[in-house]
Amino acid sequence: MGDRVHIREVGMRDGLQSLAEIMSTEDKIAWIEAEYAAGVREIEVSSFVPPKLLPQLADAEAVLQHAMSLPGLRPSALIPNLRGAERGLALGVPEMNFVLSVSNGHNLSNVRRRTEESIEDFRRVVARCREAPEGKRPFIACGLATSFGCTIEGDVDEDRVVRIANEVAEAGADGVILADTVGYGQPAAIERVFRRVIKDVAPLPVAGHFHDTRGLGLANVLAAYQAGCRAFDASLGGLGGCPYAPGATGNIVMEDTVFLFEAMGCDTGIDLDKLVAVREIVARALPKVALHGAIAQAGLPRNFHPLARAA
Amino acid sequence: MGDRVHIREVGMRDGLQSLAEIMSTEDKIAWIEAEYAAGVREIEVSSFVPPKLLPQLADAEAVLQHAMSLPGLRPSALIPNLRGAERGLALGVPEMNFVLSVSNGHNLSNVRRRTEESIEDFRRVVARCREAPEGKRPFIACGLATSFGCTIEGDVDEDRVVRIANEVAEAGADGVILADTVGYGQPAAIERVFRRVIKDVAPLPVAGHFHDTRGLGLANVLAAYQAGCRAFDASLGGLGGCPYAPGATGNIVMEDTVFLFEAMGCDTGIDLDKLVAVREIVARALPKVALHGAIAQAGLPRNFHPLARAA
Repeated sequence: MGDRVHIREVGMRDGLQSLAEIMSTEDKIAWIEAEYAAGVREIEVSSFVPPKLLPQLADAEAVLQHAMSLPGLRPSALIPNLRGAERGLALGVPEMNFVLSVSNGHNLSNVRRRTEESIEDFRRVVARCREAPEGKRPFIACGLATSFGCTIEGDVDEDRVVRIANEVAEAGADGVILADTVGYGQPAAIERVFRRVIKDVAPLPVAGHFHDTRGLGLANVLAAYQAGCRAFDASLGGLGGCPYAPGATGNIVMEDTVFLFEAMGCDTGIDLDKLVAVREIVARALPKVALHGAIAQAGLPRNFHPLARAA
Repeated sequence: MGDRVHIREVGMRDGLQSLAEIMSTEDKIAWIEAEYAAGVREIEVSSFVPPKLLPQLADAEAVLQHAMSLPGLRPSALIPNLRGAERGLALGVPEMNFVLSVSNGHNLSNVRRRTEESIEDFRRVVARCREAPEGKRPFIACGLATSFGCTIEGDVDEDRVVRIANEVAEAGADGVILADTVGYGQPAAIERVFRRVIKDVAPLPVAGHFHDTRGLGLANVLAAYQAGCRAFDASLGGLGGCPYAPGATGNIVMEDTVFLFEAMGCDTGIDLDKLVAVREIVARALPKVALHGAIAQAGLPRNFHPLARAA
């Protein structure tokens, strides 16, 4: 215990993209500033997809530009392809996350290409980013969706996940994100796969992206942590529920994830009271959207001794 | 993995006692029978407290008598004191759970005695039960409430939990239950305390009783499991929310707990589809009560291969 754990806000991307409502650029910026004031230092701010496909994220450039002006904040953007990478390079975004699915069926359904073709696309993205002048080269992570099960194929072979993680590392990834976007993961498998991938791709960082769709979100976080993972995606209020399961939670709740780690004595750098207060901004901006989270409802326990507040 | 894990339904006791509504004896029996048909073999059916204090559980004898008629079912009852034990002995209940609080302040507030006095009470309960004729002696477990934090005292010293667990084992407990009734626990502390207690009181079984008040319920279950715990309390739909935190979950959700273990390849003996269907009985009987649970809402994932169904 006592480790430093990085928790990245992804609600502005993964959360907002699944909502019918569109949040204004001003509200997004207020959200970023409030989390920054609470100590959050990693935010996936937007996605470089065509605005026609995701009008919710059409203001990617404006929001990223603001986030990039905050000292010490590490803003990132999702990129679906080379064109997305070009937008990020033009703007000078310091970190980009390319995503492909380990499951071929899921990748075909999402981007109409086989997983192997997407790995080739990733190679081209890395090559393009390396053309950027020294000091302007972004950190390029590769997210492996459906690493713990697939809504189309069901089981996803663990050896395949490990092999693809090695392939994207060899292709030049600066980091790997093992993602359970569909909420199919369970702790035993997660611990096994994280252990193998962390060992194979070291010293590259390996992050975890979990959804709480079936209630195992934080148990899965704990399992990945025990396997050595120290970086996790989460979203405020669990923003990002699946549109096909009303009321179901999507991303793991950021407040509860910070609570998990701070309660165990790990330093997240985040002030939990301030983080919980950010919910008001999101609630005002998205009045129809349900915010999840246990700690916001129950309050901090009397045996809680946060590190951030003590500092 | 592949272990047998025991999951005990406690909603009929811990859940119902916190509700304003009173469930009819018929509905309780229907609930027991439906869970029995789903493979549940351990149910804390009621509590031998004075009916004036808990009218919700005034039918303890009738419900227990029915539960005791089901072959292979292990029904249990909570007992607050020697008088409760007498009621259980008169009925021939096979298993009783005495509860005391590790935190002195909590014990004083609950039963107006110091923890040490409650340990003496437990000794008398054990002595009384040993007077029962051979073959009629109940299994007497001792539950240690506030083992992971206290709403009154805040921190609870881990050495004190371990010491009291040893004392109740020495006093003649047949089993120990480490309980986080107030939802203050976190995985690192839980793993440490379970490891120490399991080692000290072996071969006595050590069970875990967790609440999901602050979202860590299943992460805490996982931590206790990793420390060697193989028996857990849970309640259908998480019945038993705290009356002071509307909408907050109480006990960990039984369906999600079964899902956690079956997904990891542990055998609970419980058919998850049948267990989820039992919610209809409770929902009909308690129309005003919110039932929690992720797996009931999201459905089983396509990579789920349950052991009970395969058998």
